[in-house]
Amino acid sequence: MRIVLYYSHLAEPASVVNAPLIEEAKKLPNVQVRWLDSLYPSFRLTPEQIAAEQKIIEGADAVFFQFPVQWFSCPAMLKSFIDSVFAYGWAYGTGEALRGKKYRVIMTTGGNSKSYSGEFTINDLAKPFITSAKYCSMEPLPFHVIHSDSPSEGRVEKYLSLFK
Amino acid sequence: MRIVLYYSHLAEPASVVNAPLIEEAKKLPNVQVRWLDSLYPSFRLTPEQIAAEQKIIEGADAVFFQFPVQWFSCPAMLKSFIDSVFAYGWAYGTGEALRGKKYRVIMTTGGNSKSYSGEFTINDLAKPFITSAKYCSMEPLPFHVIHSDSPSEGRVEKYLSLFK
Repeated sequence: MRIVLYYSHLAEPASVVNAPLIEEAKKLPNVQVRWLDSLYPSFRLTPEQIAAEQKIIEGADAVFFQFPVQWFSCPAMLKSFIDSVFAYGWAYGTGEALRGKKYRVIMTTGGNSKSYSGEFTINDLAKPFITSAKYCSMEPLPFHVIHSDSPSEGRVEKYLSLFK
Repeated sequence: MRIVLYYSHLAEPASVVNAPLIEEAKKLPNVQVRWLDSLYPSFRLTPEQIAAEQKIIEGADAVFFQFPVQWFSCPAMLKSFIDSVFAYGWAYGTGEALRGKKYRVIMTTGGNSKSYSGEFTINDLAKPFITSAKYCSMEPLPFHVIHSDSPSEGRVEKYLSLFK
């Protein structure tokens, strides 16, 4: 499975949980890691950049998104990417470039698992992604969540198994 | 009630529903409208800009957010604003500048009301906002939603009543 992994993390070099995992993902021959904050410091993508990203996605079997949860949602950079790349005429409407492609969301949370078991759950967090992907006829792979109290033992192995 | 209204709309001049309403809001003496995409074309706020926005919010009784729904969430610009302005030490943690302030979310949707009555509802869309605001001890005012099939008759009056 050829995978393109879109990663957003403003404080990437200081990231304790994400950065080491991303380094592992980069070693996989079937995975292309694209750190959005580094690629697009101006935040918005030009039409040429949008077309280039669409071409990369067209060549992949699956699109993965990885990010730290911020205000119960994804970082603004990733939202900016989706808003511009998942365009009318390509992702939906008169186009269906994403149809049948798999997708997976990988999230880290500053809170522990208990803090996502009450009024706001991971399912709530996942819903905008699930609905957007469904709108584009994408096929879901299970979400992967790493909470602040998730065990660090076996973390890398579990993470790498997501890319098979 | 002194209100600061944060508005995000990438295609503001071409906006059919939001633009005329925003023009009405601008006329109200107790309302300060801040169109984020125009204020921050570089998308990210500098520390000085963050401090200035925090001061504006400190001087208001209520914070309103208005935007067109994009991919079942708010536009990236508004998320960027929240991610940076609702900072640790001011909005939460060691600070509680937002405690007791009211907030309201005003949304327009490209879809009709029926398209938000199935697997993804307005309540799903609202949840990240509600949870974030609760985290900062803000007090909710009812959400206001204008769907593509919402009647245009009385729209302005209903909208203006939100600011009293």
